[in-house]
Parts: sequence; structure tokens; C-alpha cells
Amino acid sequence: MERPKRRQAKTEAADFASAGGPAIILVRPQLGENIGTAARAMLNCGLLDLRLVAPRDGWPNVKALNAASGADAVIGRARLFDTVADAVADLNMVYASTARGREMVKPVLTPRQAAANLHHGRAANTGVLFGPERSGLNNDDVVLADAIIEVPLNPAFASLNLAQAVLIVCYEWCAAAQEAAPERLPAGRSPAASKKEILNFFNMLEGELDSRDFYPTAQMRPKMVSNMRTMFQRIQMSQQDVQSLFGIVKSLTRPPPGRTSGEK
Amino acid sequence: MERPKRRQAKTEAADFASAGGPAIILVRPQLGENIGTAARAMLNCGLLDLRLVAPRDGWPNVKALNAASGADAVIGRARLFDTVADAVADLNMVYASTARGREMVKPVLTPRQAAANLHHGRAANTGVLFGPERSGLNNDDVVLADAIIEVPLNPAFASLNLAQAVLIVCYEWCAAAQEAAPERLPAGRSPAASKKEILNFFNMLEGELDSRDFYPTAQMRPKMVSNMRTMFQRIQMSQQDVQSLFGIVKSLTRPPPGRTSGEK
Repeated sequence: MERPKRRQAKTEAADFASAGGPAIILVRPQLGENIGTAARAMLNCGLLDLRLVAPRDGWPNVKALNAASGADAVIGRARLFDTVADAVADLNMVYASTARGREMVKPVLTPRQAAANLHHGRAANTGVLFGPERSGLNNDDVVLADAIIEVPLNPAFASLNLAQAVLIVCYEWCAAAQEAAPERLPAGRSPAASKKEILNFFNMLEGELDSRDFYPTAQMRPKMVSNMRTMFQRIQMSQQDVQSLFGIVKSLTRPPPGRTSGEK
Repeated sequence: MERPKRRQAKTEAADFASAGGPAIILVRPQLGENIGTAARAMLNCGLLDLRLVAPRDGWPNVKALNAASGADAVIGRARLFDTVADAVADLNMVYASTARGREMVKPVLTPRQAAANLHHGRAANTGVLFGPERSGLNNDDVVLADAIIEVPLNPAFASLNLAQAVLIVCYEWCAAAQEAAPERLPAGRSPAASKKEILNFFNMLEGELDSRDFYPTAQMRPKMVSNMRTMFQRIQMSQQDVQSLFGIVKSLTRPPPGRTSGEK
């Protein structure tokens, strides 16, 4: 039996989620839209475990579902709790995301450092607390956490939208989950040109330029040729690129049809 | 005289902005809310240069101002353009943020790699293009870019909200800004060409090819132009390179002295 495509995509999206990913715990969130956008950001990053502590407008929330833009896998399994203590009860390691410093003596980490800890730490079940939109976490919430996450931003304008803060923490977790990806060119690219093919092009181009007195003086020719070759080699030509360049130069050296001598 | 506190905070927020930060270019954005949230994310990360290409609901937009949550320093100096080409005219290095692969042969970078390039590259004026909410950038937009930024996310649920995509790129730039001192530029190299200079070259080259029936059919022209531009942009042209290319094409289009018609 074939599953419908959309259903299939959702299943795969859920499959990407790692069992080791942190729970995202929204404490007394106010706007359903922000819950939905946070859920979308979680699934973007392969996280599924959303926990809600006393959301202002109750649960379920249709605005949250709409804003989730298809992240139903997260919204559908979100769990509701009365208190932060209940929400973190099964976790071994909890971080509190805050915008402002606290007096408490707890380690303060960037999202990147926290992501590294979440991956390399020995804690099995981890979670990150996010406070209400207007006020952030209060001290009673933060005291339940093992460490604090602060996003290093513009110190004079550091207050992130709730879903944006969730995104950065999830994104760093996701980025840490993937090995440093080397820079790549898209697949399907024509094979790299051989040096011989490239030199054939250079010889042809330089020959055409020779016959047109391109070089102001003979002394300047070697330096100018060297500069041109250096410039063109930055293209890192494929075989297709060499063909294109041959075609361009061939076309340019033909007089335009209908252009008579003397016309310019 | 004491300035009001809110004014003071805004001034400091703007002060954090680095002159080296990229311009954020929203191409045909649909929702004012997203423009505002993107502006807030920019100021969170110390970026000020917001450019709007043909926003659907016009400009200024009160919904954008409300969603900016105080990022007036960004909204207030946002600049409006009719075309992407106009919006990037003064830039030397442009990235296109896309969610899906393109056929074009351009480097594909993660936001982190792009941020490192933005800091260590030789380009003075940089920018990142973001497409409309529903469709993303089209190929004509992407072809103007030097490289593509893809956020490495859940492959089955990779579509980010516009403001979330802007945030990740800005956040990585901000994180990189706090890490490393800039690398020294290679000495003696001519300054990077502006997009305007590069487009002037493209227009001249394509005009010469047009007048010589370079394209086998009119239908093939857009794809061939796109491939040529992509190929030449891999040169990452300096101003000197653009001058050289102008000189080469000008020389090639002149008939060789003493060559008579019919001789080949």
C-alpha cells in the first residue's frame, strides 16, 4: 500500500529526530502563534519533544497549529504540565535560556557550547527552558536548571522573540549533530577540464588577441597573458565551461551579420 | 542634558552595528510582519542595512514597524529598490539564501561558512538575498549571487519562515564577529568590483553576442546567459579584472588589421 506523499514526508521529518535531542520546554507561553512557530523551528532542526507549562490560552490552541505550518508531528505530541518541576521531572540535565544575567552561580553557556554539551555530555535526557514572551523565566524557574544559556547578541538590543530564541538553540543542536560540511559544488556538474583543454583555450584566445594588437607593447605581453590566465583559472573550469568560452570567443571574433566595414 | 533612556538604548544598539556587516536584502517580501521580525533579528545581531525589493504591500508598512518591536533603527533606514540588480549594485559579494538545490554551478555554503567568508573575505560590501515567503528566490535572482547559502536542517522539513532564515544568517555573522580578528587581505590586489561594474560587463558581452546570433534559439538564451554569468562570477572579479574583460571583448570584436573579408 502506498502512503500519500505528504504523509510520507511527515514521517521522514519525524524520523530525522534524534533520540538524543533536548526537550524544548515553553514556560507560561502567551501567544499561540509563538508556540506554533517554535514547533516549526524544532522540526526544522529535527527536534520533536515539545513541553508546555501552563500556556496562557490553554491547550490545544488552533493558532499554534496554524503557525506550525505543517509541524504537526511536534504539535500533536506536545505535552502539557502544570509546573516547571513536573515538566523537567524525567530529565537529567536542564538548561535555562535567558536574555539577562542572573545572580545565581550557574555556568553560563552560549547556544553553541550548550549544543556541544548536549551531544557530548553523558546526560541521557536533556531539556531547555524558555520563559514567557514579556518577562522571561523567573528565578524560581531558573533555579531548577543546571546551567544558563545566553545568546551572544547586540548587548543593547538582545531581547529575542520567543520562537527566535528557540530556533537558535535548536539550530545549534542540529548544526552540532552534523559534521562540518565541506563547501561543495552541486552534483551534475560537468567534469573538471584538463589542463590541456584549458591551455588550448588560452592559446586560442591569446592568438586572437595577438592578431588584433591587444598588447600595447611586446614587453607587456607576458605579464598581461599571465594576469589573464590567472583570472580565467579562478573559474575552475569544467569541460562545459571550456566549450562555452570557446563558443563565446569564436562568436565575438565573427563580424556581426549585416555590419559593414567602417560601421562601429 | 540627559537623553531619555529609550533613545539612549537605541543609539547604543545602532553603535553595535559593524560597518563590515552584510546588507540583508528581502526580495518581494509578502508580509509586513515578516519584514518587521527580520529587522528585529538584524538589530539583535548588530546589522542595520535592510534593503527591500518590491515588497508586496508597499513601503512604509505599519505592520512591519509594529513587528520590529523597537528595531526602528533598521526599519527607519530601510531602502526600497525596484529590482534585485538595483539592490545589489554597490555590493562586491552577494549570497543567495535558498532552501532547495539549484542547477547553477555556484559554491554552496552553510551560514557558518558564509559568515566566516563575510569576515575574512576581501569583499568590502556584501549582502544576502532572501526570497518571498511562498516561493523563495527565482533563478534570475540567484544568478546575480556569487554563492548560495543553505541552512543544514531536517531534510524532510527544511522550509524556514523568512524571519527565521534571516535570523540564522545574521546570528552566524554576529557569532563569527565575536570570535576572530579579521584576516589580512592579500596585498596588491585591485579592489573587488561592484555588482554594477560586473553587470555592465555582462550587458556589454551579451549585447555583442546578441548581435552575432550566438544563441541557437531565442528559447535557449536565458539559460545560456545564466550559465555564462555563473561561470564568469566564479572569477570573483576585481575592478582590474572587469577592465581586462572589457578590453578582451573589445579587442575580439574588432576585425584584425589587414584581414580581408573571406579570409579565416
